[in-house]
Amino acid sequence: MESPPRDALSLPLNELSAREVQSAVARRDVSCERVARACIERILAHEARVAAWVHFEPDGVLQEARRLDRADERGALHGVPVGVKDVIDTADMPTEMGSPIYSGYRPAADASCVALLRAAGALILGKTATCEFAGAAAARTTNPHDPLRTPGGSSSGSAAAVADYMVPLALGTQTGGSILRPASFCGIVGYKPTFGLISCAGVKPAAETLDTIGFMARTVEDVELAARVLTHSAESAWLPQDARLRIGLCRTYAWETAEDATKQALVGAATGLDSHGHHIEDVELPAGFGDLVGTREVINDYERARALAHEWRTKPESISGGLAQSIRRGLAMAADHYLSALRHVEACRRALQHLLEGLDVLLAPSVPGEAPVGLEYTGDHRFQSIWTQLRTPAVTLPTHSGPHGLPVGIQLVGQPHADRQLLAIARLVFAQLGRGPTVAR
Amino acid sequence: MESPPRDALSLPLNELSAREVQSAVARRDVSCERVARACIERILAHEARVAAWVHFEPDGVLQEARRLDRADERGALHGVPVGVKDVIDTADMPTEMGSPIYSGYRPAADASCVALLRAAGALILGKTATCEFAGAAAARTTNPHDPLRTPGGSSSGSAAAVADYMVPLALGTQTGGSILRPASFCGIVGYKPTFGLISCAGVKPAAETLDTIGFMARTVEDVELAARVLTHSAESAWLPQDARLRIGLCRTYAWETAEDATKQALVGAATGLDSHGHHIEDVELPAGFGDLVGTREVINDYERARALAHEWRTKPESISGGLAQSIRRGLAMAADHYLSALRHVEACRRALQHLLEGLDVLLAPSVPGEAPVGLEYTGDHRFQSIWTQLRTPAVTLPTHSGPHGLPVGIQLVGQPHADRQLLAIARLVFAQLGRGPTVAR
Repeated sequence: MESPPRDALSLPLNELSAREVQSAVARRDVSCERVARACIERILAHEARVAAWVHFEPDGVLQEARRLDRADERGALHGVPVGVKDVIDTADMPTEMGSPIYSGYRPAADASCVALLRAAGALILGKTATCEFAGAAAARTTNPHDPLRTPGGSSSGSAAAVADYMVPLALGTQTGGSILRPASFCGIVGYKPTFGLISCAGVKPAAETLDTIGFMARTVEDVELAARVLTHSAESAWLPQDARLRIGLCRTYAWETAEDATKQALVGAATGLDSHGHHIEDVELPAGFGDLVGTREVINDYERARALAHEWRTKPESISGGLAQSIRRGLAMAADHYLSALRHVEACRRALQHLLEGLDVLLAPSVPGEAPVGLEYTGDHRFQSIWTQLRTPAVTLPTHSGPHGLPVGIQLVGQPHADRQLLAIARLVFAQLGRGPTVAR
Repeated sequence: MESPPRDALSLPLNELSAREVQSAVARRDVSCERVARACIERILAHEARVAAWVHFEPDGVLQEARRLDRADERGALHGVPVGVKDVIDTADMPTEMGSPIYSGYRPAADASCVALLRAAGALILGKTATCEFAGAAAARTTNPHDPLRTPGGSSSGSAAAVADYMVPLALGTQTGGSILRPASFCGIVGYKPTFGLISCAGVKPAAETLDTIGFMARTVEDVELAARVLTHSAESAWLPQDARLRIGLCRTYAWETAEDATKQALVGAATGLDSHGHHIEDVELPAGFGDLVGTREVINDYERARALAHEWRTKPESISGGLAQSIRRGLAMAADHYLSALRHVEACRRALQHLLEGLDVLLAPSVPGEAPVGLEYTGDHRFQSIWTQLRTPAVTLPTHSGPHGLPVGIQLVGQPHADRQLLAIARLVFAQLGRGPTVAR
């Protein structure tokens, strides 16, 4: 089922999707520079409130846009403005990782994902705010739906920028729930690919066996387009509108921590999908899956302590209290304790594979509820980190809202490496359930 | 079985093992500076022929050695000189990756492995020569046993420096066979841990699902000590001298590519171990394992092209012809082709797990034979890359020699994450089989 066509050029250019920009630029209906100017104007108008960006230099962006306009070849993302989470290296912009240790730091090279986006003609608009080293210590970014609430983290700026129509597309990373949670809180689409699908070269590791690079956008088509460019995969088929999917409704062990908003979103989504003719069945995770909350902390502490060994050795005073505790725990942890956590997760992965047999997709909670009030706490990651550890591809769709009219996402989960199938299903589900609240334009 | 004690201090200090240095320094029998001076003198005497180092500044090393001598606390590697392969970031030395693109490049931070070694008191002696981006384009390093022969690659300088008594310990990385092959050619111990055991943070990726950091030394105890420091694992038990191991003799699908030297080494090792009372049985790999030669190329091309996307986009003319071909193949490759290679390897991993049940260790060829003549070609990786893909820990032991009196290693392979058990077995096996040819002192 294709998205309903819309007259893209009747919209403000900063509201176009990545596909709409690419297509308009390829047809020369619009210049890269005009698209860039629209995004820049939006940022200049809203940035004081949203604080999505940590590096943003309009002049350099416009110069690069004009270079793209002069190019003979048009890439698959030609002229598409992209925000880059600031733990991802950029050769022409600072990469500060949300840490004073890297204030003003300029890497020698673009990260793999950035270089591949640029090779496809993408226009890097700037660097988006991140929690300290993609962890928990919050950036200044606010939720575009309500400046008193967190946008979620750690890909805070990427989510806020996309939700606020500053860019159609942004790069994020997820180690616990750092793509899906902010996407859900900000009311956009978040896509965490299968672990390992997108090269992490040039991205500061947080916890290497969990770190996954992904995308945020306002449409499923856009995250898919970006992933296709990076992985050189084929376009996934459009499912027919009358497709009958076998959907597993998976409340997970964290269900009792969900607020009514999330419970209603999940039940509402299941009911809606049932009314479209899909087959919904409850899927209960085996007992050991409850321990994935604990294993995530063990793995995260152990690996993070090692990834930040240099910073800890040379500038411990510049590391936040929470991260310092995590590093201390990680350095004191015996390898056997860590390895037994890895083995447990591996056993859950094998169990999940059997559990998913005969199902097209899992429908699961994405976050406990609406974005919490306050900017210090970026929210609970357990609904996301289960799947991060299981290495499944996962998509959050901004289909629902909570008691304050704020977005509440739902999550779709597929088999590892069935990313294309998952995205095809996500397109259909999003079209059938419809979009929840969006930011005022 | 403990190594026979020797009067370490009667030896030239550059010939001590890492454990001997650590212990002598801890007892204040010798200063870090004296050990460093002995290594520096050896390097100055032999470097013109061996060319193991790409960065070596004796003054800075001695200054750091004196700082270590003044330290009140003595770490687990206090004063141990270490060579660092030049794809591994160092904050105080250049990191050139064997590529003109990174000539003079100074990273902002130490890699995780370097920072953890330093935190334990290790003395980084310099940067060792590497093939271009840990690939195939050779460095200038020669084999310390014969300057007309390759030391193997890509951890060429690390292997040559350890074999030539320039340092007791060096860091290497293995994506195909880059630790075990040069260790085998140079007549030292090479240890490639289970994939993921040692953090790759701060190490330039070659192919991320294969890259593994490991160690080279002249004793098994030394690689184990270094790994213990990095992973915070317990010391493995000493096996009794009359231990009866169940050893699987695994010739692998590449057996017919082995020269007589390797065939004789493997059969000789099996016979020797049998005479020590171990149980030896043939292990045949299932048919699909023969395809691991092909999957390694697919995975390597696909991932390498992405890891080097920036360098390829900005300075393709500075990339060697062979690597450029690999990148072109990788960028042209459909994701599905890559994913099916990953799936095949995954299936082999599961099959291996069953195959290893009831066995303590596999005994396998390490290299096709002695180091080939010539410096351009660093040797065939198929005897190593099988196990790299299977993510098993692997150790090469310098137990045998070939027709020209040059070293020929054997390989021991364990279950993933059974690294401690493998190293305990390797100690016993090495003691029972004895050491092959060493470099003249």
